[in-house]
Amino acid sequence: MTPPLPLPEGTHRLRVRYCETDQMGVAHHGSYIDWFEEARTEWLRARGKTYRRMEEEGCLLQVVEVQAQYLRSTRYDDLLAIRTSVVERRNASITLAYEVFLAETGELAATGTTRLACVDRGGRLRRLPPELAE
Amino acid sequence: MTPPLPLPEGTHRLRVRYCETDQMGVAHHGSYIDWFEEARTEWLRARGKTYRRMEEEGCLLQVVEVQAQYLRSTRYDDLLAIRTSVVERRNASITLAYEVFLAETGELAATGTTRLACVDRGGRLRRLPPELAE
Amino acid sequence: MTPPLPLPEGTHRLRVRYCETDQMGVAHHGSYIDWFEEARTEWLRARGKTYRRMEEEGCLLQVVEVQAQYLRSTRYDDLLAIRTSVVERRNASITLAYEVFLAETGELAATGTTRLACVDRGGRLRRLPPELAE
Amino acid sequence: MTPPLPLPEGTHRLRVRYCETDQMGVAHHGSYIDWFEEARTEWLRARGKTYRRMEEEGCLLQVVEVQAQYLRSTRYDDLLAIRTSVVERRNASITLAYEVFLAETGELAATGTTRLACVDRGGRLRRLPPELAE
Repeated sequence: MTPPLPLPEGTHRLRVRYCETDQMGVAHHGSYIDWFEEARTEWLRARGKTYRRMEEEGCLLQVVEVQAQYLRSTRYDDLLAIRTSVVERRNASITLAYEVFLAETGELAATGTTRLACVDRGGRLRRLPPELAE
Repeated sequence: MTPPLPLPEGTHRLRVRYCETDQMGVAHHGSYIDWFEEARTEWLRARGKTYRRMEEEGCLLQVVEVQAQYLRSTRYDDLLAIRTSVVERRNASITLAYEVFLAETGELAATGTTRLACVDRGGRLRRLPPELAE
Repeated sequence: MTPPLPLPEGTHRLRVRYCETDQMGVAHHGSYIDWFEEARTEWLRARGKTYRRMEEEGCLLQVVEVQAQYLRSTRYDDLLAIRTSVVERRNASITLAYEVFLAETGELAATGTTRLACVDRGGRLRRLPPELAE
Repeated sequence: MTPPLPLPEGTHRLRVRYCETDQMGVAHHGSYIDWFEEARTEWLRARGKTYRRMEEEGCLLQVVEVQAQYLRSTRYDDLLAIRTSVVERRNASITLAYEVFLAETGELAATGTTRLACVDRGGRLRRLPPELAE
């Protein structure tokens, strides 16, 4: 076995749950969408503002587009490391990219992006909050 | 193969989704909880009042207890038939029972119950609506 | 209210489950991925070969890419109609597209695609079965 | 605010995911079933044998009964602490209990149990492995 590749900093770690597998014996492709979301929550927290707080202040991030590429299966109890990064910022939207690594080997298992529109409680577009607009 | 048993009337039918299986090759035990909920929605609709409408009118059914017994595995694409019935009514709560049958054979795959408290938007207990109190 | 638009033929119908909503009060974006999968199952059944059977015969469709665009929110108990169609066929893969309509109004709520690789039990690429290759 | 109650040792921690909420604005009752499962995985790991390993060795724990009581709502991003303990051991089954605490306040949010039958790959009952039989 080759030594594990170094994992990028700032990754969020989680383990594949049993309920996230399917009868192919691997994590179901839909589970990754939930992991992206969890990684996004932790990425925001690390930037000093929780998404929970943002929502309470009337700034909702609505997913308007999602995509994922599956490169390598992940299995029950695998430890994953997910890196979140900004792809593009506009006035009222932001696109984030995710890379899902197998933490033990450093192999890239999946990539994906979500485009998020910033809306108020009434669903109207509003400017990104300073934490996201930078 | 013995002829299928007659299925009880008033059952709600659904098929096991692929994403609802796990690596044991059968439907995950957590999926049944969601099926109970879907069966409850259809049971209410058949009684003439949708739960969607009930919620809009400020009557929320909060699950305060759930239990399930698993008797027989169900698999991807199995057609299931779920019968919902009332076990007990109180002023502000109702207990429903569910029986999950394999529709092709009529075999009982699982049973369960949920106890539901009737609350208003503020979470205060309120009387069951007439449709449920009978 | 304008009269509902005519819905395309061959659509699969389902209702948004309560558990599929999130605290924004609408169906969670991840739920659509599961609906695409359910629509795919029914689309295959309508073509005369169930995916369950295909898997039993050693032909597995592995999702290698998924994407979705969200145009309009869907809510608990909304009746949806999903149309599945073929975008592209290759030797060992097929790309399907999905359109999710609100069945009551005929409005398009979401679109998406999945690219599926055809593999055997060992994960090796194999030719699409005749039912998919046409 | 009263000082947080001391949390019991050996608890597994997790945060409520956004996708685990529903339109009532709280964690959906079905999510707790998945958390029990995750807590069980970590409880087994802490005892020196992962469930992944147990399954690879042909010892599967099949859920035959589950129940949960909901005492207090939990919300998106709440940090939870789950304690797992043994309620009863038989030759071929074990019943585990779970207590879900709100980690910030130490309040008990839910309790539950799962009865697990130990079976081999063919679904036949077998003795509990030494790690569980003690």
